[in-house]
Amino acid sequence: MSTSSWQDIAKQKRDSIFAAIPSDWKIQDPPSVSSQPDVTTYIEQFLSKEELYITASSADQIASRVGSGEWTAETVTRAFCHRAALAHQLLHCLHEIFFDAAIEDAKALDKYFAEHKRTKGLLHGVPISLKDQFHVKGVETSMGYVGWIGTFEGKKGTGKEKVYESEMVTTLRNAGAVLYCKTSVPHTLMSGETVNNIIGYTLNPKNRRLTAGGSSGGEGALIGIRGSPLGLGTDIGGSIRIPAAFNGLYGLRPSTGRLPYHGMANSMDGQNSILSVVGPLATNAASLRLITQAFLDQKPWLVDPMVHEIPWRYEHENSINENIHDGRGMEKRGGKLSFGVLKIDGVVNPMPPVRRAVETLVAALEKAGHEVIEWTPPSHKTLTDAGFKSWIFDAGNDVKGAFALSGEPMADQVKFYETLDTEFKASEIAATNVELRTLKKEHMDYWNSTKDKTSTGRPVDGVICPLAPFPAARPGKYTYYGYSTWVNVLDYTSVVVPVTNVDKAVDVRDEGYEALSDQDKQIQGDYDPEVYDGSHVSLQIVGRRLQEEKMLAVAEYVEKLLSKQ
Amino acid sequence: MSTSSWQDIAKQKRDSIFAAIPSDWKIQDPPSVSSQPDVTTYIEQFLSKEELYITASSADQIASRVGSGEWTAETVTRAFCHRAALAHQLLHCLHEIFFDAAIEDAKALDKYFAEHKRTKGLLHGVPISLKDQFHVKGVETSMGYVGWIGTFEGKKGTGKEKVYESEMVTTLRNAGAVLYCKTSVPHTLMSGETVNNIIGYTLNPKNRRLTAGGSSGGEGALIGIRGSPLGLGTDIGGSIRIPAAFNGLYGLRPSTGRLPYHGMANSMDGQNSILSVVGPLATNAASLRLITQAFLDQKPWLVDPMVHEIPWRYEHENSINENIHDGRGMEKRGGKLSFGVLKIDGVVNPMPPVRRAVETLVAALEKAGHEVIEWTPPSHKTLTDAGFKSWIFDAGNDVKGAFALSGEPMADQVKFYETLDTEFKASEIAATNVELRTLKKEHMDYWNSTKDKTSTGRPVDGVICPLAPFPAARPGKYTYYGYSTWVNVLDYTSVVVPVTNVDKAVDVRDEGYEALSDQDKQIQGDYDPEVYDGSHVSLQIVGRRLQEEKMLAVAEYVEKLLSKQ
Repeated sequence: MSTSSWQDIAKQKRDSIFAAIPSDWKIQDPPSVSSQPDVTTYIEQFLSKEELYITASSADQIASRVGSGEWTAETVTRAFCHRAALAHQLLHCLHEIFFDAAIEDAKALDKYFAEHKRTKGLLHGVPISLKDQFHVKGVETSMGYVGWIGTFEGKKGTGKEKVYESEMVTTLRNAGAVLYCKTSVPHTLMSGETVNNIIGYTLNPKNRRLTAGGSSGGEGALIGIRGSPLGLGTDIGGSIRIPAAFNGLYGLRPSTGRLPYHGMANSMDGQNSILSVVGPLATNAASLRLITQAFLDQKPWLVDPMVHEIPWRYEHENSINENIHDGRGMEKRGGKLSFGVLKIDGVVNPMPPVRRAVETLVAALEKAGHEVIEWTPPSHKTLTDAGFKSWIFDAGNDVKGAFALSGEPMADQVKFYETLDTEFKASEIAATNVELRTLKKEHMDYWNSTKDKTSTGRPVDGVICPLAPFPAARPGKYTYYGYSTWVNVLDYTSVVVPVTNVDKAVDVRDEGYEALSDQDKQIQGDYDPEVYDGSHVSLQIVGRRLQEEKMLAVAEYVEKLLSKQ
Repeated sequence: MSTSSWQDIAKQKRDSIFAAIPSDWKIQDPPSVSSQPDVTTYIEQFLSKEELYITASSADQIASRVGSGEWTAETVTRAFCHRAALAHQLLHCLHEIFFDAAIEDAKALDKYFAEHKRTKGLLHGVPISLKDQFHVKGVETSMGYVGWIGTFEGKKGTGKEKVYESEMVTTLRNAGAVLYCKTSVPHTLMSGETVNNIIGYTLNPKNRRLTAGGSSGGEGALIGIRGSPLGLGTDIGGSIRIPAAFNGLYGLRPSTGRLPYHGMANSMDGQNSILSVVGPLATNAASLRLITQAFLDQKPWLVDPMVHEIPWRYEHENSINENIHDGRGMEKRGGKLSFGVLKIDGVVNPMPPVRRAVETLVAALEKAGHEVIEWTPPSHKTLTDAGFKSWIFDAGNDVKGAFALSGEPMADQVKFYETLDTEFKASEIAATNVELRTLKKEHMDYWNSTKDKTSTGRPVDGVICPLAPFPAARPGKYTYYGYSTWVNVLDYTSVVVPVTNVDKAVDVRDEGYEALSDQDKQIQGDYDPEVYDGSHVSLQIVGRRLQEEKMLAVAEYVEKLLSKQ
């Protein structure tokens, strides 16, 4: 056994991913970032008309067309494999490619459909991309660590290598999904940018001068360029919502215990004060709903001990829908919806285009007859400071151990782990847990109290809020997580909705801005209309804990509302 | 400010509890334990015919009679106050007495009923006793610690002293319950016997040579002697089920996140690997159902951030009830129920009367047409060893701090904390959490696998199991917790049902018994038919996580079934 350098191992892996791309899908001379920052249209030249049509479809449309027999799973799968292969060459967004297995699976689904005259499940024939934390048979999970290559979660000879599948993967297969690739993550998973020593830096397809986000950055980039219609990421501090937002996608961060996480690779596994959750990213809200239903239909509480037995609740989504007036003669049974709006969290002010997105969404809701009130919760700084502790309980020992396996260096984005040396002890963790519980209660009471401020007789139905101070971060400049992490600390449900795009003519620099702090000053300074022009600008709408049905209904409504403008 | 010894402070508190008993309710010459081991009938001489009738009623009967106007809340409250006062003198089971406030509350409820012609809630006029972890205005919470007297959870000047109420208490008041006393606990809460330096040792009313159990031992003793119809305890390792079982009561250990715990005092608060849960003890199963419904009707998920939004599920209890054939002409819509039976956990064998109780219950179920199969799960020893770690994460620092406040000594029952000195660090806690999750999954898969062994097409509906190797422990001899703690480790739902009483003529010593281990040998040796004669013998029936409705339906059914024998 030869001892290879981490550089050699990383290169070998990088090359093997590239080698899995069929040669006639290779881009001969990919354009430089500066010559072609936006590749969302550029990519189309390599695709057939049929491929373009298929890959422009949303997951719910695909499910419907395959389910009606209009398309075969195989055709759909081949189209997305092709587009994903192109995407990787432009964006560095894939960790594993298994197109051949996917096409075999698709053929089997088509055979099933032909024989049984019905679909295998709600996701029959829908290609679904997976963040590289999901274990899928036939391929490995590096999670961006060079030291994990050729192992199972860093360990050799477990017998699970390339055989074991996460419960989520089994669930997806049972629902008829076609799995074909795994997408890039930042090593450690603890960054809003996606960078590792294997595939490099994942770029934003709409604006390659910016990050695709993280930690589900490969998902964001791939779905953003329509190399996948629907994918799964995870979120412990914003990692689903950040890439969804930065790529103009819809994303759901469910609360802990709604969807099965069992058997996934993770960082700092066993830290159970603030848990990572799994959730979908897609090109429309209906697809988020579809996959969430597909999971719940399979009673995941019988295969994952951390999942609560809460089936899909139609009455919950109806409680939102009955307050929506679409002007098509639907009887007005309810009244209106009521939202809180958090424009600034008291620490860092969002950049001008994000502020405009908030105004845009608020105006659209108000115009449609809904109510928006100021959201003035207890201190967000206290909340995010308390939450941050849970991410450094082990002083980075887990991630340091993963780096040590190969000797590879940490990316600058996660170098803060190097500054840590003392683990929290049990009594300090317990004190943190009590603090977190107290803060949750405080914010719960605040949410309840909004009943007195709305005209609906209910507390607000959701809170409109940026999920980052920027439309997307410039490389190396993702320095503030407060807008996303408060949701994780409180374990709230959150949906991301795209709202607008940066327009350099409108979203000018806020000259004379008086910064709240050095951090705020730096972030405001990072805004450059020329660099940001055209980028997606998205927001999150936050619901109470375990309110997935309601927030998905809100997301679907907001999607329709904004598309009318 | 004088510095009093812990002995003085404890005596002052002990005397003040006694002083709160009206003088004409005092027992002039309480009998010794040896002269009167069973005081359940003895107590009746001090009560009027009406008081006897009222206090013989179950909580659901009381709710029904007060709700129909047959009884007033005040009459009921006075009767239970009287009986509770007598109970304390015989058993040492109360930490706080607030009869005057209770009678005022009862009068207000009667006034409400007279005015509105309806009850305030499902528990209107039902006296409910509370373990001394609940904060109730007007009285303090010592939790058995001398050092907590005159403080709020050991701290002075918090402004919460005698004012703050736990969310659970608010919920109970909203449902119309009458609160009148708080019951004894072992200091630290971590014992199956109830002993502390304030009120001493809580005795078992049916057999004062034995413990009333712990840590909700005061509840067990008080309800056991009918000084309360219904009470609330907590359970992190068996603390509801042990006293319920030892006193011939019904008890529910719900899963984490079903009932609100917010704002209760606790030991090692913030340890969140295995959580303490709150749950009821009562004289019949219907009362457990009543109070569980009363809580869920109030949407506790809106006041406690740890509670999952799972309302009472009628379809769940119906799924049990439709398989019950009561011979009263009910249509047989389902089939039969199927149970696993765990007779011995592989570590310690239950004493002869407990083994007979298992046989009795199994025979009754089989006779009624149900199925009972052997339950052969993965190792219980592995499970309980892993679970035990979470109770010593902080090396006892929390409880040591509480003892240090006054300088009082630890009771022998919890002295093991003195042997601990090194806290777990974050990475060790994380590893424990991963181990616990893996074990949960393993047992979940085992439960699922029983589908292939039953004739119902379903996995077993519950698991019949001892919850301790003894009917009750003799003082100082509660040395094995494995039968109760496995349920906490897996976060399963469990109900306790009384099955029989020790009969010294039948439950003879198992002479020639070959012990599994020294611990087993010691426990078998502790069995003495003369000492145990007449004691309650109970079992638990364990359901999957968050299956409160189903297990309550099972408990109600088993109650009827056994009463027919």
